[in-house]
Amino acid sequence: MSHRAPLLITTGEPAGIGPELTLMLAAKGLLGNVVAVGDPDMLRERAELLGLAVEVVNAVPGSREVCAPGRLVVWPAALREPALPGVLNPVNAGYVLETLQIAVDACQQGHAAAMVTAPLHKGVIIQGGYPDFTGHTEWLRDACGVDEVVMLLATDNALHTQSSRWEGSGDLRVALVTTHLPLRDVADAITYDRVVQVGRLLAADLQHQFGLAAPRIAVCGLNPHAGEDGHLGREELDIIIPALNALRAEGFDIQGPLPADTLFTPRHLVDVDAVLAMYHDQGLAVLKYAGFGQAANITLGLPLVRTSVDHGTALSLAGRGIADPNSLGVALALAKRLAAQRSNAMSAS
Amino acid sequence: MSHRAPLLITTGEPAGIGPELTLMLAAKGLLGNVVAVGDPDMLRERAELLGLAVEVVNAVPGSREVCAPGRLVVWPAALREPALPGVLNPVNAGYVLETLQIAVDACQQGHAAAMVTAPLHKGVIIQGGYPDFTGHTEWLRDACGVDEVVMLLATDNALHTQSSRWEGSGDLRVALVTTHLPLRDVADAITYDRVVQVGRLLAADLQHQFGLAAPRIAVCGLNPHAGEDGHLGREELDIIIPALNALRAEGFDIQGPLPADTLFTPRHLVDVDAVLAMYHDQGLAVLKYAGFGQAANITLGLPLVRTSVDHGTALSLAGRGIADPNSLGVALALAKRLAAQRSNAMSAS
Repeated sequence: MSHRAPLLITTGEPAGIGPELTLMLAAKGLLGNVVAVGDPDMLRERAELLGLAVEVVNAVPGSREVCAPGRLVVWPAALREPALPGVLNPVNAGYVLETLQIAVDACQQGHAAAMVTAPLHKGVIIQGGYPDFTGHTEWLRDACGVDEVVMLLATDNALHTQSSRWEGSGDLRVALVTTHLPLRDVADAITYDRVVQVGRLLAADLQHQFGLAAPRIAVCGLNPHAGEDGHLGREELDIIIPALNALRAEGFDIQGPLPADTLFTPRHLVDVDAVLAMYHDQGLAVLKYAGFGQAANITLGLPLVRTSVDHGTALSLAGRGIADPNSLGVALALAKRLAAQRSNAMSAS
Repeated sequence: MSHRAPLLITTGEPAGIGPELTLMLAAKGLLGNVVAVGDPDMLRERAELLGLAVEVVNAVPGSREVCAPGRLVVWPAALREPALPGVLNPVNAGYVLETLQIAVDACQQGHAAAMVTAPLHKGVIIQGGYPDFTGHTEWLRDACGVDEVVMLLATDNALHTQSSRWEGSGDLRVALVTTHLPLRDVADAITYDRVVQVGRLLAADLQHQFGLAAPRIAVCGLNPHAGEDGHLGREELDIIIPALNALRAEGFDIQGPLPADTLFTPRHLVDVDAVLAMYHDQGLAVLKYAGFGQAANITLGLPLVRTSVDHGTALSLAGRGIADPNSLGVALALAKRLAAQRSNAMSAS
């Protein structure tokens, strides 16, 4: 894969803010070696609606056409029906997934260096005939044919200083053992194998994608107070501690399990490169508090580089030009650096 | 109850840092109209061990003896066996609970204005013959004969500006629907009645104890993304939304349910007096990140004022004089203000 291949933005749910965030970055000249994936006519209409002076240009995967200030190059997918901002239409579910498939294929064929995903709407994909759809991350896992992936969110400061550690500035990287599960299903999803596999993937990608030679990982318990010696749940004693011991035996630098409300304090974060939380709200409520709009989502364990915004489709804001494109910019910057790091690592090996 | 009655500090687990934090504040002259509850001989030994110039003075409940710089007045309870820093002894479980009972009785008899609890160790209380013990908060609920209490944590800035709202400075008040439960038991503990009762108690105590005329409360969902319209769990649709609608029908200002990782961002917090989280780590990981060592715990719904530190017994630090007494100071300052507010409210009614 050439490191000069472009970064892709999949523009996501056409009724959401993804298309306009992409156009806003193009209008501001913030898209360099980038190509969007979506419906070019929809993007043209959205630019007109918002009064954005952006020329939308069709191109084909593998071409060397890329964005420039005021110019958005698009690899096309066709909407099944026209899309209005704020109005979900299940008929377009297949279109949204098609944009992802175009991006995966391009990354795997070397036509793209990385993919950055704007938000999709899970509910409308399910309604649109994909009842098993649970999210971007899981879809990409299956599309790439890998068994396990890990969701990592990182705040902006951590992105700008990839080798530095938390110093009270709000830098934070948080990975999750489980992602989009009802809370009542979380405890049963915390298995020895999953914790070990996620720990390995996280450590490996902190090394290979982030360039951290010996990443230090702190792990949350599942239960309040990390189970308090079994008085508040036994998963720490029965599952998590044995799994962390196995990871230590493999040479990884692992702390924990620690209570989540102890771990997320300066005294502990200062010596940590990433936090591994057991479930969504345990890790992401802090992450978003620390860096909302300055955070990006990275999928570890894929054979390609994928980052994402840290927000949803924001239907109530769509078509109004008032959504903040900063997280998309952060996700792009991160994808660029991860792709370069991966390219270097592959050249070196 | 006279507003000149002293504040009590229960010194908590004798092997932990509670005794020395109390002594450190006495040595610094930070205890005014305050009395400690604990074993006076243990406190004398601990002062000597740490080289703290504090005279420990015995007194009886109802006397007007209070602390002064270098002078710690103690209402005595007797250790069952001598206590060493860092060494838990289940035989002293009854002693720890006795200090709490002394404080509750004094508050209810008008001999004390409020109680501030240093940490105890749940595990050793259970081992010591109290298998049903689940924590300070639940013990106080039963000791006071009330059906429901609510745990609220508040960071320091919120304490100093009781009528102000979140302004990006880290001020935060977080109450919990459930507290010290294994994570796998949380979903079943979220009932319509519990959410309504906690919402009422929280709103009432924000009015009466915090002096907020029309408190604004934002509520987290139970599931990630607040269930995403039922795709990630149905508790929001079946339980939480109906309960919040009932609270709104009673006139309370309630937002939500919102995803925890949306709610804990400046855009939402700026219009909120308190956040109601569904469970421990969902709310407290953020709270501790925002204000560790600057936060205190308040039990709402009791017929007395009770605050607490936001940390545990820290056995590994005990007897070394290096623990930070700041949270105990914050808890005392808060108890003083809540007691004065309650006294004013009672005078006015």
